Amino acid sequence: MHSESASLPSRRDLLSLIGAVAGSAAMIHAMTALGFASESGYKGPIELDGDPKGASVLILGAGLAGMTAALELRKAGYKVQVLEFNSRPGGRNWTLRGGDKFTELGGVRQTCEFDEGLYINPGPWRIPYHHRAVLDYCKRLNVALEPFIQLNHNALLHGSKAFGGKPQRIREIKTDFQGHVSELLAKVTRQGKLDEGVSKEDREILLQALQSWGALDKDYAYKANLISADFRGFAKEPGGGLGAAPVPGEPIALSDILQSRMWRYLQNFALHEFQTTMFQPVGGMDMIGKAFAREIGGIVRYDARVTRIQQDDRGVIVTFSDAKNPATPQQTKADWCVCTIPLSILSQLPLDVGARMKAAIDAVPYASAVKVGLQFKRRFWEEDEAIYGGISYTDLPIRQIAYPNTGFNAGGRGVLLGAYLFEGANAYEFTSLAPAERVARAVEFGASLHPQYKAEFENGVSVAWHRVPFTLGCAGNWTDKARAEHYDNLCQIDGRIVLAGEHASYLPGWQEGAILSSLDAIARLHARVVKT
Amino acid sequence: MHSESASLPSRRDLLSLIGAVAGSAAMIHAMTALGFASESGYKGPIELDGDPKGASVLILGAGLAGMTAALELRKAGYKVQVLEFNSRPGGRNWTLRGGDKFTELGGVRQTCEFDEGLYINPGPWRIPYHHRAVLDYCKRLNVALEPFIQLNHNALLHGSKAFGGKPQRIREIKTDFQGHVSELLAKVTRQGKLDEGVSKEDREILLQALQSWGALDKDYAYKANLISADFRGFAKEPGGGLGAAPVPGEPIALSDILQSRMWRYLQNFALHEFQTTMFQPVGGMDMIGKAFAREIGGIVRYDARVTRIQQDDRGVIVTFSDAKNPATPQQTKADWCVCTIPLSILSQLPLDVGARMKAAIDAVPYASAVKVGLQFKRRFWEEDEAIYGGISYTDLPIRQIAYPNTGFNAGGRGVLLGAYLFEGANAYEFTSLAPAERVARAVEFGASLHPQYKAEFENGVSVAWHRVPFTLGCAGNWTDKARAEHYDNLCQIDGRIVLAGEHASYLPGWQEGAILSSLDAIARLHARVVKT
Repeated sequence: MHSESASLPSRRDLLSLIGAVAGSAAMIHAMTALGFASESGYKGPIELDGDPKGASVLILGAGLAGMTAALELRKAGYKVQVLEFNSRPGGRNWTLRGGDKFTELGGVRQTCEFDEGLYINPGPWRIPYHHRAVLDYCKRLNVALEPFIQLNHNALLHGSKAFGGKPQRIREIKTDFQGHVSELLAKVTRQGKLDEGVSKEDREILLQALQSWGALDKDYAYKANLISADFRGFAKEPGGGLGAAPVPGEPIALSDILQSRMWRYLQNFALHEFQTTMFQPVGGMDMIGKAFAREIGGIVRYDARVTRIQQDDRGVIVTFSDAKNPATPQQTKADWCVCTIPLSILSQLPLDVGARMKAAIDAVPYASAVKVGLQFKRRFWEEDEAIYGGISYTDLPIRQIAYPNTGFNAGGRGVLLGAYLFEGANAYEFTSLAPAERVARAVEFGASLHPQYKAEFENGVSVAWHRVPFTLGCAGNWTDKARAEHYDNLCQIDGRIVLAGEHASYLPGWQEGAILSSLDAIARLHARVVKT
Repeated sequence: MHSESASLPSRRDLLSLIGAVAGSAAMIHAMTALGFASESGYKGPIELDGDPKGASVLILGAGLAGMTAALELRKAGYKVQVLEFNSRPGGRNWTLRGGDKFTELGGVRQTCEFDEGLYINPGPWRIPYHHRAVLDYCKRLNVALEPFIQLNHNALLHGSKAFGGKPQRIREIKTDFQGHVSELLAKVTRQGKLDEGVSKEDREILLQALQSWGALDKDYAYKANLISADFRGFAKEPGGGLGAAPVPGEPIALSDILQSRMWRYLQNFALHEFQTTMFQPVGGMDMIGKAFAREIGGIVRYDARVTRIQQDDRGVIVTFSDAKNPATPQQTKADWCVCTIPLSILSQLPLDVGARMKAAIDAVPYASAVKVGLQFKRRFWEEDEAIYGGISYTDLPIRQIAYPNTGFNAGGRGVLLGAYLFEGANAYEFTSLAPAERVARAVEFGASLHPQYKAEFENGVSVAWHRVPFTLGCAGNWTDKARAEHYDNLCQIDGRIVLAGEHASYLPGWQEGAILSSLDAIARLHARVVKT
């Protein structure tokens, strides 16, 4: 929060002191008392004061971490050069549109056949409101945003063995579970079975609250009536004119919801990372990468595959090959290096760093993820089923079907995210398939939720992140144990090299992590340069 | 759902039969069994087959009900004429922008001083996804839509006597209440205090579900840790680089939430009417009214104040005065009349209808509502507080502060809905104030939630619906008793006159009610014309 930034440091110092002296529980209490509702790691545009004394920095990777470093270091007076593997900026900040081609590991080349204006984001696709750094760069770089819908009450939950395989509306499972829970707790409260911990006065208010929140009737029952229908929806919606009275539907029994396991999905709508209001850039996520590239201009060298990183006490030498002339290795030098190459790649390169950083680089496996985009002749999910944006969940291998959050209600063709597999055996299995087969399976499985699939499908494209040459995986998959042992070693400056990227953050897989790690890395690098 | 419309009538007939023979409970069960997840009153574009035989229809009011009737009856071959009180189309479908002027009852004239591109919608401002008729007309008339954010987890709940008057984040109240409820129910479940109604197997699954849904730890406790923080947000957000570990905050105690009464607001985010995905037209709600007016072209006569409605068995004669020449009454005739004049106005006009319709017209009081729009120098709610769209609630007389759902993150000036009072003494009190005083109070009260108000406020505008000459109130405020006694009498065709509008629907105050009532009215009118 910008307006508070002037007063924050002293409070933070105080908190660090409390944390060090009295432990984390005391620190939490102190933070609450000091009014830290939520402190972001981003305090507004970074200020790199002090003279860089003509120093040069070589940045490896033109993803968001690399381009953040390039933008800010150049602004601070450094000589900056960027090497990028791809022939485009952005890295995982990537959008696939009609005409785009890409080749995955194994050599299979796909050409996206989507109509003009349709796209999928194979990598990041949503921006939480509390990712202050991403939002601030979007603002500074004039990237227009629109809401990303995470929870659509009218989207589907599907269990292949639940409710005879018939998809349920999220609003019904969500409302009915909450209603039954409220009814159960109201019953034991009225029976005097609650702990002494809840006072008599609070018990009375609790009953009122459960009645309101759980859609209970005057007898604290959750059942078919216009009260529950006001939340779960109606069997017959209220209308106009004669014969227009609404008719409530029958709630799903608690036992059926419990046995269906569909309650598992409800937390996806409540997680801080997925809370309203989320955003997406208008036109595709790569609008951010393109805006950065526009801003930093000609200092990015594309099609440059780094093959070796050397350093001594005078500087850094990086060897790379140009994709158009791969047989002739080239070299470039700088005083310092900010390396944002994913650890999955970096761990395979000759790299002059100490044993501790090397161990950290080797310690982080990369998550498996697969996305499939499917184009359909018409937006049947809107026209037939009143599903506008958001996500349906299933226990089938495709896991999710996500509906486009743009072009609402306008008709015409549309592209669904027809599968989003993240970790688990199904992600590895899909990765092993040929791209066309992934698409075919996504259509086959998706038809269990939307029978219109088979008549309306036109074409598809898929990205399996373990086969993407520039990352060999989706994102750093830290365990708590690996983080405790290696994270700080990964982030320390090693000689003249510092690492940045989502892998060097507590926000794995998020663009915010990439930018925040980059800002932290260059702040420390700059402090060292200024001091020497 | 359009794809089902062909097969619906027979199922509906069956249901009516079940309802008549076996009562509504049996009907609900039958509807569920027949797979009526949710039946809308709108089945796609109306088809008025058959020859209108040159009949003419006079439509009173160019709000959405009147313009729907005009569009469809003209298409069916009727001679159609529309009389409208205002000098613009739309009625309550209305947007105020810089330069707009309007005069309220009592003669006070306001000029809106908002900057270019900023607006408020004094009347309807949101469209639920299940309002199929409104959405279909938007599609047919090319009205672009964008999401309306009802629930913003980072917006505020404020109680003047709760938490020392300090606003709370919705995400914290919402998550903490759910967490405490889950903990309480998990505890009694583990203590074996639940009814026999929940089987042993279900109890085990219930515990898992409460743990997942309520963010409970392994001991089924809800407390300060990274589990609850993943839902309620962090005291210190996870970051990047060194020193970036997240710190959880301390949940608010159940007793404090109960005593604060802030749980009352949680249902606003769960109600079917307010569920995601909601919409607003890009650029203002009046884009719908304007699109209708464009479509029906020159058949609307504006500035026409109806003063008398007469009928006999040959036709209808309506007397009106032109606002520019009020001293000279004029008359127009037609075979039939669709009257969409609000009952608050219609009850005061000489009108030739039977006693039962007259009693119905007199039986419906109109709800009081006040909206205040406030322009600020900058979008401090986004810049300082990370609140993007959605609504904050307070127990102060202003009740709500709603943030604009467009132009996100782009900076510049912004307009808040600074007060939205609906019914209750505060609405009547604000109605009694001069417009400038309403604005001043909204600024004064709003500063309790946003201290930036006083430095950033620029100008404001207010609409108190009981002082709006063309409605004298916000919407028909049916009681269950009045509806049972009068609703069908209101909707019946009386001779050559039929009424339409939100007041003739089960969706009071909603544009969907206006359109559905109009479609039902003209379908019955047309059946009568074709039959005679």
